[in-house]
Amino acid sequence: MGRVICAGLGPGDPELMSVRADRLVRSARHVAYFRKKGRPGQARKIVDKLLAPDVTEYAMEYPVTTELPFDSPAYIEQLARFYDDWAKRLVQLAQHQDIVVLCEGDPFFYGSFMHLYIRLQGRVEVVPGIPGMVGCWWSTGQPMTWGDDVLTVLMGTLPEDDLVRHMQSADAIAIMKTGRNLPRVRRALARAGRLEQAWLVQHGTMPQQQISRLVNTPDSVCPYFAIVLVHGQGRRPEVAE
Amino acid sequence: MGRVICAGLGPGDPELMSVRADRLVRSARHVAYFRKKGRPGQARKIVDKLLAPDVTEYAMEYPVTTELPFDSPAYIEQLARFYDDWAKRLVQLAQHQDIVVLCEGDPFFYGSFMHLYIRLQGRVEVVPGIPGMVGCWWSTGQPMTWGDDVLTVLMGTLPEDDLVRHMQSADAIAIMKTGRNLPRVRRALARAGRLEQAWLVQHGTMPQQQISRLVNTPDSVCPYFAIVLVHGQGRRPEVAE
Ligand SMILES: C[S@@+](CC[C@H](N)C(=O)[O-])C[C@H]1O[C@@H](n2cnc3c(N)ncnc32)[C@H](O)[C@@H]1O
Ligand SMILES: C[S@@+](CC[C@H](N)C(=O)[O-])C[C@H]1O[C@@H](n2cnc3c(N)ncnc32)[C@H](O)[C@@H]1O
Repeated sequence: MGRVICAGLGPGDPELMSVRADRLVRSARHVAYFRKKGRPGQARKIVDKLLAPDVTEYAMEYPVTTELPFDSPAYIEQLARFYDDWAKRLVQLAQHQDIVVLCEGDPFFYGSFMHLYIRLQGRVEVVPGIPGMVGCWWSTGQPMTWGDDVLTVLMGTLPEDDLVRHMQSADAIAIMKTGRNLPRVRRALARAGRLEQAWLVQHGTMPQQQISRLVNTPDSVCPYFAIVLVHGQGRRPEVAE
Repeated sequence: MGRVICAGLGPGDPELMSVRADRLVRSARHVAYFRKKGRPGQARKIVDKLLAPDVTEYAMEYPVTTELPFDSPAYIEQLARFYDDWAKRLVQLAQHQDIVVLCEGDPFFYGSFMHLYIRLQGRVEVVPGIPGMVGCWWSTGQPMTWGDDVLTVLMGTLPEDDLVRHMQSADAIAIMKTGRNLPRVRRALARAGRLEQAWLVQHGTMPQQQISRLVNTPDSVCPYFAIVLVHGQGRRPEVAE
């Protein structure tokens, strides 16, 4: 009897995977990972040089959304079936051998894998990873939070007024799922008076990493793997934790 | 000419260190770490089985606080001198060989090391790590954030009214530096209507790890390495990220 094991892979640089995840990935005979149709999948890319040559791969391709609006009941239903099916399939595959599910960042932090996890209760192990945002603030070369700074993590998918409200009350801010939402994120930062301090990190710790001040960056270029950061200033440097 | 390298060690389990940090620690000839006088130091404990037998160790002992109030100008001044001195010392030591500074969790996330970092600008490298809170939510076996949940990270040192305000507007909450502040954190959670959902994780991913519902846990037992978590509920399980 094998196990389903989800390995958090960290932000992108394979050297930032945990020792445990690295060992699991290198010794895996079966791996599964999410991807959009026709795309390689970010998690799969991270382990490119680590997988055994004879590994068996299962690409879990999200159902295509062009026909249906992203938040329509029909699409949501389709997605629920997609997760149901893969949860069953993984359990079947694990009857004979371990299967390692590859996930970017940390699996419990806004990860798609969580939709499988709740369906697999008790039959799955998870290995935590460095969240993408931690890799992104590392890449800016500036400490993120000091002293009693409040850090708030926001999704670019939130309504603009909600973004503004949270941005106003936080010291340090990380905004994920920017991509197409970048214009709204930018407007919210401006309204909250935080735009001047914001950084945009695209593909943090990956070979194509790009870091720029958001005020100097046009909306047009923002990929899915991008995070906007406002660093906390805290009470420093005089006070210890 | 050597380098000063700060290795983020993750939450506690040595297997959760990054591949890069693991290699640095195992091959280090000189290591430095913070500790309170008379204590082993948490970072030092994590690498206990990894260090080379002939490694040279530098314990950076915080100045003792019993004489002076923690936030008095005199103590703050003393602390600044302590960081100044160690910054100079590390640069000197690195003239001949690399010196690896050991830090729990991620160095840029509320880490004492940041006070050295800003004094060593340009002469120091950092390796990110899994933050303690990620290890703690992993240990609860429950995903932390879903969909467009807002996650807010708070310090138990904040005034109660600030805690309440932030707790009320967040979906998922992580409260660090609980320890002696646990009674205030508990009161704030109760006022914000979040106490029933709160977990207390002590020494997450370490051998002595303890997980409990906060409502069932007395204030008396809380150590420094403890985090209170309220998991987000998001829109789930139907909606993908
Ligand atoms: C569905 S969430 C998954 C988060 C992941 N579980 C984690 O721990 O980072 C995807 C979002 O994570 C962010 N992200 C993750 N890794 C990133 C990286 N290396 N660089 C930039 N953004 C990243 C992006 O904002 C992206 O839209
Ligand atoms: C000065 S902060 C350092 C945080 C560290 N840089 C990180 O990334 O987690 C110390 C606080 O981190 C939290 N902490 C870190 N690791 C922990 C663990 N394994 N279990 C419980 N709490 C932890 C505790 O709340 C503690 O008071």
